[in-house]
Amino acid sequence: MPRRSFWAWGNADREPTPADYAAMAARIRRRYGTTRPAPTPPTDADLNLRPPRLRPHPLVAEFCVADDHDRAAHTYGRSFRDRIRAFRCEFPNPPDLIAYPRTEAEVATALDWCANSNIVAIPYGGGSTVVAGVEPPPAADAVVTIDLTRLNRVLEIDAVSRAARIQAGALGPDLESQLRPHGFTLRHFPQSFEFSSLGGWIATRSGGHYATNHTHIDDFVESVRMLTPGGVWESRRLPGSGAGPSPDRLAIGSEGILGIITEAWLRIQARPRYRASAGVVFAGGMPAAAEGARLIAQARQWPANLRMLDPAEAEDFAGLDGQQALLIIGFESAELPQDDNIRQAVAIARDAGGAIAEDAIVIADAGSVSSAGSVSSAGSGSGPVSGADAGRQGAVGSWRNSFINAPYERNATIGFGIVAETLETAITWERWPALDTQVRAALDDALRETCGGGRVSCRFTHVYPDGPAPYYTFEALGPVGGELEAHAAIKQAASDAVMAAGGTITHHHAVGRTHRPWYDAQRPDPFAAALRAAKQAVDPNGILNPGVLIDP
Amino acid sequence: MPRRSFWAWGNADREPTPADYAAMAARIRRRYGTTRPAPTPPTDADLNLRPPRLRPHPLVAEFCVADDHDRAAHTYGRSFRDRIRAFRCEFPNPPDLIAYPRTEAEVATALDWCANSNIVAIPYGGGSTVVAGVEPPPAADAVVTIDLTRLNRVLEIDAVSRAARIQAGALGPDLESQLRPHGFTLRHFPQSFEFSSLGGWIATRSGGHYATNHTHIDDFVESVRMLTPGGVWESRRLPGSGAGPSPDRLAIGSEGILGIITEAWLRIQARPRYRASAGVVFAGGMPAAAEGARLIAQARQWPANLRMLDPAEAEDFAGLDGQQALLIIGFESAELPQDDNIRQAVAIARDAGGAIAEDAIVIADAGSVSSAGSVSSAGSGSGPVSGADAGRQGAVGSWRNSFINAPYERNATIGFGIVAETLETAITWERWPALDTQVRAALDDALRETCGGGRVSCRFTHVYPDGPAPYYTFEALGPVGGELEAHAAIKQAASDAVMAAGGTITHHHAVGRTHRPWYDAQRPDPFAAALRAAKQAVDPNGILNPGVLIDP
Repeated sequence: MPRRSFWAWGNADREPTPADYAAMAARIRRRYGTTRPAPTPPTDADLNLRPPRLRPHPLVAEFCVADDHDRAAHTYGRSFRDRIRAFRCEFPNPPDLIAYPRTEAEVATALDWCANSNIVAIPYGGGSTVVAGVEPPPAADAVVTIDLTRLNRVLEIDAVSRAARIQAGALGPDLESQLRPHGFTLRHFPQSFEFSSLGGWIATRSGGHYATNHTHIDDFVESVRMLTPGGVWESRRLPGSGAGPSPDRLAIGSEGILGIITEAWLRIQARPRYRASAGVVFAGGMPAAAEGARLIAQARQWPANLRMLDPAEAEDFAGLDGQQALLIIGFESAELPQDDNIRQAVAIARDAGGAIAEDAIVIADAGSVSSAGSVSSAGSGSGPVSGADAGRQGAVGSWRNSFINAPYERNATIGFGIVAETLETAITWERWPALDTQVRAALDDALRETCGGGRVSCRFTHVYPDGPAPYYTFEALGPVGGELEAHAAIKQAASDAVMAAGGTITHHHAVGRTHRPWYDAQRPDPFAAALRAAKQAVDPNGILNPGVLIDP
Repeated sequence: MPRRSFWAWGNADREPTPADYAAMAARIRRRYGTTRPAPTPPTDADLNLRPPRLRPHPLVAEFCVADDHDRAAHTYGRSFRDRIRAFRCEFPNPPDLIAYPRTEAEVATALDWCANSNIVAIPYGGGSTVVAGVEPPPAADAVVTIDLTRLNRVLEIDAVSRAARIQAGALGPDLESQLRPHGFTLRHFPQSFEFSSLGGWIATRSGGHYATNHTHIDDFVESVRMLTPGGVWESRRLPGSGAGPSPDRLAIGSEGILGIITEAWLRIQARPRYRASAGVVFAGGMPAAAEGARLIAQARQWPANLRMLDPAEAEDFAGLDGQQALLIIGFESAELPQDDNIRQAVAIARDAGGAIAEDAIVIADAGSVSSAGSVSSAGSGSGPVSGADAGRQGAVGSWRNSFINAPYERNATIGFGIVAETLETAITWERWPALDTQVRAALDDALRETCGGGRVSCRFTHVYPDGPAPYYTFEALGPVGGELEAHAAIKQAASDAVMAAGGTITHHHAVGRTHRPWYDAQRPDPFAAALRAAKQAVDPNGILNPGVLIDP
């Protein structure tokens, strides 16, 4: 198995090559009219970490490691800030040990050791956090990162109820490859799919990439099993319950501060056989495309995809003219043809001013394709329908490929002085135009002040009947060596604007350490008191991921 | 405004008449072959309550009352046990005062007074609880019931986002009548609709009567405002958020132990214009009809109605032959015709062994009816489509009328010695047949031991892709005067069976005081510790509804 890169997205064998750097330099010349030399990426030889401040207890020694590469790779997530720091080999505060428990019993042993010895324990899934959710707190005397990825099995499948018991450390592809032979899929595909885990999805309220209806991990969880210092927190396996506040809903989003999720029962689905998709172009730009998205969502057809790309995104990712916005609409089903659904949705989009040629509406079912059953799914969330490639042609297909590859493509930007990041929120429809205006103004101002200007684009990743989840991408060319300062100023300005406009500081990226200032302002104070008390009740020594979500 | 009955469902003017009692006596003769004399219902003159143990503080005196009728009417909910006790005028432990705050400020004043004076405060909406959720704890020295029903206004409508800010005391009909002129509906219709409140729905995780997809109040809540002794717990208005565990989801289901919900933003919908329904008959009985329900739910068409009636229910409520089961399927939409949906669902049901004549599939849209816009909705959850009466004809219509009137019809059984109640759970599909066998066996045994036998029937109130929510009704003729003992034994046996079979002790009736023994066994222990700590953090004196959900 290839080793994970300690700084880049993905495995070490996907770190940028000289050719990637040459292409990036050419791109920078084209876009920014300037020449930047290719950086030299760091290697393990450049690591020089502080020695571990503790030795593993004999009970955990067999599954603990303390080598520099592993500790460096587990110090940060994969945000822009994380990758810059890791690229520079700045690891002033790495975890002291990485535990790789192979069984739930070993998780319990590691947790007990930490709880009894006042060692900070950081639950770790795929490490794809972009909010510093796995970064050791500076004040801790000793830190053990508990990496769950050895617990990666689908343990049980209930085909009648369509549910599966899955270990928390299973990464997306692991989990899907174990469900696929049974004809099932979890159908939860965050952009981090390749390097994020089931437990991480639950702990961070992962959004998935489907646009409407059931897409959040919240909706797929049937029960959770979580080890806390105060005992096992395991809910009954139930399709629904009204017995008090949901125990699962307190575990979901708890970001490792209440316990370590070891396994869960998840609702699974039959793999889609029928697909239909359309990329509707709006000459009226983003306002018109957003209105189309609103009307489709409020008609409650629940498309699998309903993604608005503003003109900048539509240009970058789907080759449109820079004036037109794109609304990608997709339906899929294991059981039922989706012809009527896509036609109804397209009709609504056309009423809102969208245009699509009749023959550009792609409809496919398993019977009409030659290679049904073949799979090209890594990260795509697609399914066995590949021959007809509904949803993978034209503008829609261009966008999909970009979505899958985006995290990798950002690797080569590091070291050139590029300052780039994404940020996301959710807002009700009536406040969305004002939020967009204010966030763009804040981004534009901050980009100008820090980098002399930059590019801002927006898409909707999720659409609800009562509002969209806008997702902004910004990129600028800043000073090499000054990326972090520029990034911090831009992030601050954008986050302040999101909050002032009434949005949430995060729709699916989680809180971690990065979003704490805004999260603290967003959450109700009595809820913060309740959450702090809840943590103290199950983790009296406060060893679990302290500083994430709440202060000890 | 007519006064509420202090013992029966509904207002005093709906208490049983001599004609109702004559009809019930005749029904008892037919069904049980015995003659029972009609009881004499109690009147206000029969009330003789313990005098209030405290006087209202001058700050709350203006909106507090202490008369016997009001205190009696607020002592219990409307479960079988409640109605028997109230019918007998057994009120050993009534609340001392009933506060009727007219503003949120008055709610805060009442709550502050209680918190500062260590007076137990019981939040009260419509009083329809069947789990003793509003019953004063025996150990309390002083109890004030805070009745929210003066806070009954829709304060604001956001037509673009389709959301409304609504005061928590609004009962179902109040709330719908204020939304209707704007073309909207909350579309949340629990069977208690007429006498349950928005705040009560949120506090108890009300299920609504729609069968699939968004039906629970959980899904309609956009934000909650709740007064706690520790301050205002108010979430941002957001279509979605991933910022930590959801504050709303801890308030939802909190049953008055954390605070008093005063208002909330709710997702509303355009009133349905298109409807389609079908009552599919299964000669194969309940197993075949349940399989039809499973396959439709797993096809993710999300019908508004998907209600399985076992042969006994299908006989009682829809006039079938006592051998056939009935699967009621319904779709509705404000925007889109539902012809295709109903035909696809019927096809699935037929594949599972169901039968329905083609012309018995009822399809209606607003254009085809003469009186679109007229409303016949109290408790029905229907909408402006009334002329064509899709969903209100034949077996489907019979069932619907029974559903609406059921709580009233049970009034006349009280005093005849009838022991009757409903209980509900949820279970995954693969364990459902065993749960059904075990619950029926427990009910049959307990009914035989306590009453010499009785009738048991079952329907699905909600259907999820991973399992149904079965809802059992039992009725027997027991000894007059011994109803409570018989009922307690039957309830104990059934609840034990539900728990042993892996179900939840409640899917939508809540926990209250009644379900505590089983709830305590069901919930994870660390979650109980967390919830107890959360309560202590926001209600340090433990004055809010103590004994509900958790012990102080």
